[in-house]
Amino acid sequence: MIAEPGETARRGRGRRPIDEVRADVLRATGDIVLAEGIARLTFERVAKAAGVSKTTIYKLWPSPGALAMDAYFHAVAGTLAFDDTGDVRADLLAQLHSFAAVMRTPGGRAVLQLIGAAQTDADLAASYRALYSTGRRALACERLTRAQERGQIRPEVDVRVLVDQLWGAIYHRLLVPDEPVDDAFIDALVTNLFDGISVPKTVI
Amino acid sequence: MIAEPGETARRGRGRRPIDEVRADVLRATGDIVLAEGIARLTFERVAKAAGVSKTTIYKLWPSPGALAMDAYFHAVAGTLAFDDTGDVRADLLAQLHSFAAVMRTPGGRAVLQLIGAAQTDADLAASYRALYSTGRRALACERLTRAQERGQIRPEVDVRVLVDQLWGAIYHRLLVPDEPVDDAFIDALVTNLFDGISVPKTVI
Repeated sequence: MIAEPGETARRGRGRRPIDEVRADVLRATGDIVLAEGIARLTFERVAKAAGVSKTTIYKLWPSPGALAMDAYFHAVAGTLAFDDTGDVRADLLAQLHSFAAVMRTPGGRAVLQLIGAAQTDADLAASYRALYSTGRRALACERLTRAQERGQIRPEVDVRVLVDQLWGAIYHRLLVPDEPVDDAFIDALVTNLFDGISVPKTVI
Repeated sequence: MIAEPGETARRGRGRRPIDEVRADVLRATGDIVLAEGIARLTFERVAKAAGVSKTTIYKLWPSPGALAMDAYFHAVAGTLAFDDTGDVRADLLAQLHSFAAVMRTPGGRAVLQLIGAAQTDADLAASYRALYSTGRRALACERLTRAQERGQIRPEVDVRVLVDQLWGAIYHRLLVPDEPVDDAFIDALVTNLFDGISVPKTVI
């Protein structure tokens, strides 16, 4: 007999596999973070929303901030997935536009605030890297490396630097908003890097 | 008769031209910010160091944070000046290496903390742009536009985007330090943009 999720949560809570509990908590937290950010996120609220005890959540995450980052990573994984149509430029453009859209949500604004708070909080900075940025970087590098292996990016290019010149450039405009993150900006990021900004030497 | 600066400060304080007072305060504040950051910066301390009344400082800057940004902008103006040897790649490389060195000082770390605090403080964010980042952006764009006018950068390139792909990429690695800001990184930023990352189409 397969129990309804709500029923499982109500009844043999202690016996539920830990991975299932973790997934439920991440899902409940992700919903909150995407909809409204992290300002009013507490373990108590998540415990209620996920039908899990506060004690269990404490065992799995050191702080609501750490839980928020972990949940956000999982919540945006689908939206920020790297397509592979074979055309790396088109795939990057699509992903960067999705990324910019996510960054306009309350969850995205919360990410900027976490980066901000991490400047004076070493523990938060370490959690942010461990639970969010290092993983996102790895996913981007993986897609870029595949393009490099297929001869779409020069072999001597360090793809880790491209992460800072694409997503990092967008983060920069969001963190210090002197200029807008609009479609033209995102298109230009890709064009500048792939085509180069030098004037091509014409052979007569 | 030319009075010694200290003497002027002690005597006819009220009669000193306001620009001279402003310069003295900016210099005294810049020394503090570069040496130790902004954590212990107060109007009182600056007033003592510059030989100016606290009331005068209040009239010129709304907060110690605003004064710190203004002072930092002036303190690093020389170090971060854009050379013009005619070779834009070499000039950019030199400036970007100087920039990375400045960002490793207590003053540079204070800038990261100001960007951080600005994520949850709209007034600070506005001051940061007005007193620091917008001005630095303009200086970079000026140098890049000159290179463009000389045919060293393609005419259709929006040089404002390059600011985010060069300095913005460095800010990104400093704010989210998953990877180091080393010499190879800085060199790669320039190479990637000027040469492009695509594999050149060889004509046989």
